[in-house]
Amino acid sequence: MINVRELRINPARLRADFDALAQIGATGDGGIHRPALSDAHLSARKWFREQIEKANLEFRMDGAGNHSAFLACQSPISNLQSPTLLLGSHLDSVPNGGRFDGALGVLCALEVLRVVKENQVTLAMNLEAMDFTDEEGTLVGLLGSAAIAGHLRAEHLQNPRGGRDAWEQGIARAGLIEKEFLNATRPRESLGGYLEVHIEQGKRLANARKQIGIVTDIVGIASYRLTFIGRADHAGSTTMEDRRDAAQGASAFTLAAREIVLRDFSRCVANVGKMEFAPGAFNIVPARVIVSFELRAPTADEFARLDAALIARARAEAARFDLELQIEFLGKHTPTPMSEHGQLAIRDACDALGLSAMPLVSGAGHDAQNLAAVCPVGMIFVPSVAGASHSARELTEWKDCVNGANVLLHAALRLARQPNL
Amino acid sequence: MINVRELRINPARLRADFDALAQIGATGDGGIHRPALSDAHLSARKWFREQIEKANLEFRMDGAGNHSAFLACQSPISNLQSPTLLLGSHLDSVPNGGRFDGALGVLCALEVLRVVKENQVTLAMNLEAMDFTDEEGTLVGLLGSAAIAGHLRAEHLQNPRGGRDAWEQGIARAGLIEKEFLNATRPRESLGGYLEVHIEQGKRLANARKQIGIVTDIVGIASYRLTFIGRADHAGSTTMEDRRDAAQGASAFTLAAREIVLRDFSRCVANVGKMEFAPGAFNIVPARVIVSFELRAPTADEFARLDAALIARARAEAARFDLELQIEFLGKHTPTPMSEHGQLAIRDACDALGLSAMPLVSGAGHDAQNLAAVCPVGMIFVPSVAGASHSARELTEWKDCVNGANVLLHAALRLARQPNL
Repeated sequence: MINVRELRINPARLRADFDALAQIGATGDGGIHRPALSDAHLSARKWFREQIEKANLEFRMDGAGNHSAFLACQSPISNLQSPTLLLGSHLDSVPNGGRFDGALGVLCALEVLRVVKENQVTLAMNLEAMDFTDEEGTLVGLLGSAAIAGHLRAEHLQNPRGGRDAWEQGIARAGLIEKEFLNATRPRESLGGYLEVHIEQGKRLANARKQIGIVTDIVGIASYRLTFIGRADHAGSTTMEDRRDAAQGASAFTLAAREIVLRDFSRCVANVGKMEFAPGAFNIVPARVIVSFELRAPTADEFARLDAALIARARAEAARFDLELQIEFLGKHTPTPMSEHGQLAIRDACDALGLSAMPLVSGAGHDAQNLAAVCPVGMIFVPSVAGASHSARELTEWKDCVNGANVLLHAALRLARQPNL
Repeated sequence: MINVRELRINPARLRADFDALAQIGATGDGGIHRPALSDAHLSARKWFREQIEKANLEFRMDGAGNHSAFLACQSPISNLQSPTLLLGSHLDSVPNGGRFDGALGVLCALEVLRVVKENQVTLAMNLEAMDFTDEEGTLVGLLGSAAIAGHLRAEHLQNPRGGRDAWEQGIARAGLIEKEFLNATRPRESLGGYLEVHIEQGKRLANARKQIGIVTDIVGIASYRLTFIGRADHAGSTTMEDRRDAAQGASAFTLAAREIVLRDFSRCVANVGKMEFAPGAFNIVPARVIVSFELRAPTADEFARLDAALIARARAEAARFDLELQIEFLGKHTPTPMSEHGQLAIRDACDALGLSAMPLVSGAGHDAQNLAAVCPVGMIFVPSVAGASHSARELTEWKDCVNGANVLLHAALRLARQPNL
């Protein structure tokens, strides 16, 4: 029997999977378009199910539409009620996204199960390779993991961020039933942990010349709709002094938010992703600018301080230009630390594989945020060329993908051999 | 026979007209909605025709859909080929505009003709009270006057700023024929001049406590579509330093444009009326922001210097944030001085009526811009309460409306008694 330490994933098999999956929803420019529960996404899910069955793993689907490959890994004397270590990511993409985000993590998880099965490794936990439903949030966001962790409430589905119509059409297309999403919660004792391989979506690994990132925290995110309200006036006959120009407040805030983060919050980010102008004509002073704004911070302290600083600045800029400000808080994810167990297992796996690693904060949200409340979680980042993300330019060198898969394998073996995390 | 110096318009008759017209297309909040060649606008034109006929004036309509009341004013020995002094404005409005803009000028013109006719005043010119087609530019802008002045070209109608569909639907609704718009040019020798009463659309008269504004120049307007182009990146995982955020360039330009005008161009204005963001999501760094921008200046020198300063600043802000800048020039109206004759006639009328007056630049465009190329022109401004314009809040005190009508009457009498301007 093979020494478990010598186990490696099969790079050729992983590559064949990767290339096949990248064809589904391909946009022709190297990217893919697989929004959650779109036809392309459903095709990718069907393909995943076929690979699971081809590998003689057990296909599972829950009420939230999460698809998975299940592998019982106990020795004959173990209890079949053993917890399950989840591995995985998601097959949906942002509109016009890249081939790597999500897809790589699902394929690495599937490959780990195949290797463990082929080598008949016995473990204290079962393994399950997950494809979580709607991670990216075309419909709701981090949806499948919220359902499993028991965080999902009926009201989250009543006013989904992608709109109610898109939601209803999506679940109808997938043959899913809304109320079943609320019945997908897994018993906490069944969850042994969660590990995910993901692209970094940034340049820090490349800049530091490290092969693997060990995520320490997933940032908190707060989203706001800020409406600067002035007065529509004739843009020719109203003097500059007499204007209450909503564009000035929105623009000043946009510049200030960047400056505040750069100066005082080096581990944080902020983004004005959109402005909407009304009335929106060349010759009318803007009466109203709606700013779609979010901020992210790695710790609860930074999160609270950054939030306070930016909202105070929005108020100050509105006052400076004699504008009203309406602040609509759209929700937040609090900063989520990854578990010590998960980080340690990844660190040990990197050491055993001779891979250089560094701790990193994830600036993006991930399903691990939801699962962190109910089981130990860990995330393995692999380098993103040029930091590109949510774009057809997304790229991770193939050797780095293989490294990520092998780290997942060995981190999973470490965690799954310990019966009680 | 009445002494011409004692002539006054009939305030009650003017008021009855004003109130009746303000019902047509009324929006219920004190404003009106009469976009060019909409049903409401066509109803207003029909009402105007009825008033012309009721006053026993001659109704005229040309190929550009300009409606007018014509009054031959010669003494029996004069040549019927005498030139015609045009008076007027427009009955169309911006979407959800006010009751005064345009309507007041048309009604004052009609009232002047009624007074001249009733008193059988003989003049060296005929008088014509004009309702120009599509002044506001829902379809093309300053359209009827461009046709009369001979500025209109077929290509202006091929790509109208309101879109080709709206144009075709509008002229069909009005029973107009596109090629006839190009045949509405009047012989230059037939045009004795043009005078218009209009609301100021600003606060300068009120601030200076003056009753009448004598327009010296109509500002030049240049319009641009400025596209700041950066790179879409994940707004969580991309550091602030690594971003090429199109919102930063657009915002910095928006603030700078205001500051430059306030500091160096006190007689000018600039407006960012709209920004459009792409991709336009909370969690994506904006790759592209399209800025709808215009600038206005009263003289050719200021126009050229302001244009150069603002476009240079747009380039500088793009460079500062590592963005590309695409500059699309959408067109301009050059600054237009009003004629000395016209200004003098208005000044003399104010003096004769005992009204306080001041010279003013018009920050808004008017049909006089087109007519200035072919005949002497003058514009009479009356105060706008709070400077409100293109809004249901638009208001001019009734006594100021009456003053404007009387100034029009006496300025017209002065101009029309001189056979050769």
